[in-house]
Amino acid sequence: MRTTVGIIGAGPAGLLLARLLHNAGIDSVVLESRDRAYVERRQRAGILEQGTADVLRAAGAGERMDREGLRHDGIELRFDRRRHRVDFPALTGGRSVMVYAQTEVCKDLIALQLREGGPLLFEAEALAVEGADTDAPRIRFRHEGREDVLECSYVVGCDGFWGVARKAIPARLTQVFERTYPFGWLGILADAPPSHEELVYARHDRGFALLSMRPPVTLHPSKEAASLPTEAFVSRLYLQVPDGTDPEAWDDERIWDELERRCETDDDWHLQRGPITQKTVTPMRSYVHEPMRHGRLFLAGDAAHIVPPTGAKGLNLAAGDVATFARALIHQQRTGSPELLDAYSQTCLRRVWQAERFSYDMTTLLHRAPGATTFEDRLQIARLERIVSSRAAETDLAEAYTGFPFGRAGE
Amino acid sequence: MRTTVGIIGAGPAGLLLARLLHNAGIDSVVLESRDRAYVERRQRAGILEQGTADVLRAAGAGERMDREGLRHDGIELRFDRRRHRVDFPALTGGRSVMVYAQTEVCKDLIALQLREGGPLLFEAEALAVEGADTDAPRIRFRHEGREDVLECSYVVGCDGFWGVARKAIPARLTQVFERTYPFGWLGILADAPPSHEELVYARHDRGFALLSMRPPVTLHPSKEAASLPTEAFVSRLYLQVPDGTDPEAWDDERIWDELERRCETDDDWHLQRGPITQKTVTPMRSYVHEPMRHGRLFLAGDAAHIVPPTGAKGLNLAAGDVATFARALIHQQRTGSPELLDAYSQTCLRRVWQAERFSYDMTTLLHRAPGATTFEDRLQIARLERIVSSRAAETDLAEAYTGFPFGRAGE
Repeated sequence: MRTTVGIIGAGPAGLLLARLLHNAGIDSVVLESRDRAYVERRQRAGILEQGTADVLRAAGAGERMDREGLRHDGIELRFDRRRHRVDFPALTGGRSVMVYAQTEVCKDLIALQLREGGPLLFEAEALAVEGADTDAPRIRFRHEGREDVLECSYVVGCDGFWGVARKAIPARLTQVFERTYPFGWLGILADAPPSHEELVYARHDRGFALLSMRPPVTLHPSKEAASLPTEAFVSRLYLQVPDGTDPEAWDDERIWDELERRCETDDDWHLQRGPITQKTVTPMRSYVHEPMRHGRLFLAGDAAHIVPPTGAKGLNLAAGDVATFARALIHQQRTGSPELLDAYSQTCLRRVWQAERFSYDMTTLLHRAPGATTFEDRLQIARLERIVSSRAAETDLAEAYTGFPFGRAGE
Repeated sequence: MRTTVGIIGAGPAGLLLARLLHNAGIDSVVLESRDRAYVERRQRAGILEQGTADVLRAAGAGERMDREGLRHDGIELRFDRRRHRVDFPALTGGRSVMVYAQTEVCKDLIALQLREGGPLLFEAEALAVEGADTDAPRIRFRHEGREDVLECSYVVGCDGFWGVARKAIPARLTQVFERTYPFGWLGILADAPPSHEELVYARHDRGFALLSMRPPVTLHPSKEAASLPTEAFVSRLYLQVPDGTDPEAWDDERIWDELERRCETDDDWHLQRGPITQKTVTPMRSYVHEPMRHGRLFLAGDAAHIVPPTGAKGLNLAAGDVATFARALIHQQRTGSPELLDAYSQTCLRRVWQAERFSYDMTTLLHRAPGATTFEDRLQIARLERIVSSRAAETDLAEAYTGFPFGRAGE
């Protein structure tokens, strides 16, 4: 089996890359270790930067996102029982974000790929990348009980933090930057309408809370059912919890009470409650692997870098990486010049480190570390006061949250 | 002995306050434990915010500052062998800072006070503030070998971190916020021209360095001496050193070599060297005492709060505190309303916490903590990259550095 670009992993990075390459007439094969149902069920991030939404549109995968996704023009910061809205378009010259779950992005891209793209093999487990520093890199993989080899011109590892691609870069060429945080997020999905029309980021002495949502699901699109509820609302809510927390240790009422308390305001705001359909705990980590390229092997997304979820940068970084790779390869194929491919790691890492910085800052701004001093508490409040009282500081946040433009593939 | 306002401490806060009160026709007595020569020799900060310079002018103490001080319209950031100028007026709508040593501010204010102000007693050591929560607070002090009492309507403690005023606020009403840093500044004065026309803040893997200067001293004002050097240049330079460093452990050549190395650039910049006339090591601490007022006792400057020197906020906070107190007392005397006096602590603390935040941020942006991880190093670089590439982030810094307007006394 051979292809121009072997892609490991059918998360949003791998799937989007396959799409961008297909549109440019470059063939690829995607290998995904899990089955399709698993990939389409995985609950992850749900905030698309302006640039990510633009790339999905340019790739022809933005139709349902534009129809069902929620354009958000701001977020709300809560602290000291106060509320402050950060108005993205007013601060950034018109930019906004799109609330549309990563799992929906994956569904859309999988459907497109299966309909008109190159091969997308589920339950195809990559075992190793070989010959990354030769002209003929290979992916050894296992599919339907047999080992096979995918011969490639290029390999892109979109296989996440635990994937095999990164391991093909020799340790002596590698530098790893890492930080773990002494807390995690207890995340729930609930059948409840959102308690606020935009995302709420709350700093509280009891810890951080985030109120988020999924776009409503249409239940009865036909006119005949007009008397029935037409939409089902889903809320996505998070609580800072100590590292290593068992989600089952938190019963539903305790979760709702804690969310309500951490988001308390001086006005008559109340939390909308409903049945909780999923509970998970996510650890929080910052991680960067340098370089992101070795010969003809390129790393993208979580395979190369992890951010804590505060600030919603993980998916957007992945989209930026693959857009950068696609543009570089297209440039190479059209002009013969490898300059953009050679610059891949450096180009991506500039953006990666800005996202790492922003994610770290949002995390330390809003979470209460165990053993935090009263000085650190006041520092957080002073930072928040600064953001809500200085247009410059607020713009800095809004620019980073809505993200920085990244080149579209094919430009 | 009695007065309206008893002021403990003849540093810049106490002296400026005496001046502002004198100009408003309110009598005061200043008690200073040291002798005049000591006060006029103490080397401290040298950067006046726009608002501090404005208050000194409004107080009639700005004449020599305007003649000899250096107006600075920016600072230079150095990192990764690169240089970036932060242009204050362009970013803040015309604001700048003044380079004029605190010790010169004190000399000017002492001369004015002795010429036309109320009593200013040197070698008058305040022993205790009594009756702060009564209508008749008193300062017990020792002067010329005798104990005496100063009966006051108000007492303002401008007696620094080690002073007695703060101790008169009952511990049960008090909250203290504190952070120490695991490094200090080795500061030198040198007879050498500045190596750059503005201050240079350098972040280096070996640690922070700061290049600063004092206004040149005029040596030969007369025309007859035109063939001789007319000005003597003084450089004020700092190196981050480990906590507890003995300044004498650093010989002159080592200091110059280290300064040159930490400020290295890719162009042909070189350090100007000269005889070192003073070496000191300053520990670094953040400290806030709340409240800043108890009854008729008011704390101002270092008596209530300490900032690490990065960002040059200490003297400016002190000036803001006493301007706030003077305005409040004048308001009370003119209208009979204590509302501004009652709000003193809250009014000052808003500004104090913003300065604490900024000083902490500048410190952690530029210093390398012992045991810092490579992740933290990259985070610093990413922060600096952000500042030099985002007008919003750069404006945030410029606004904080040049300071926030504070009301002039008498307004």
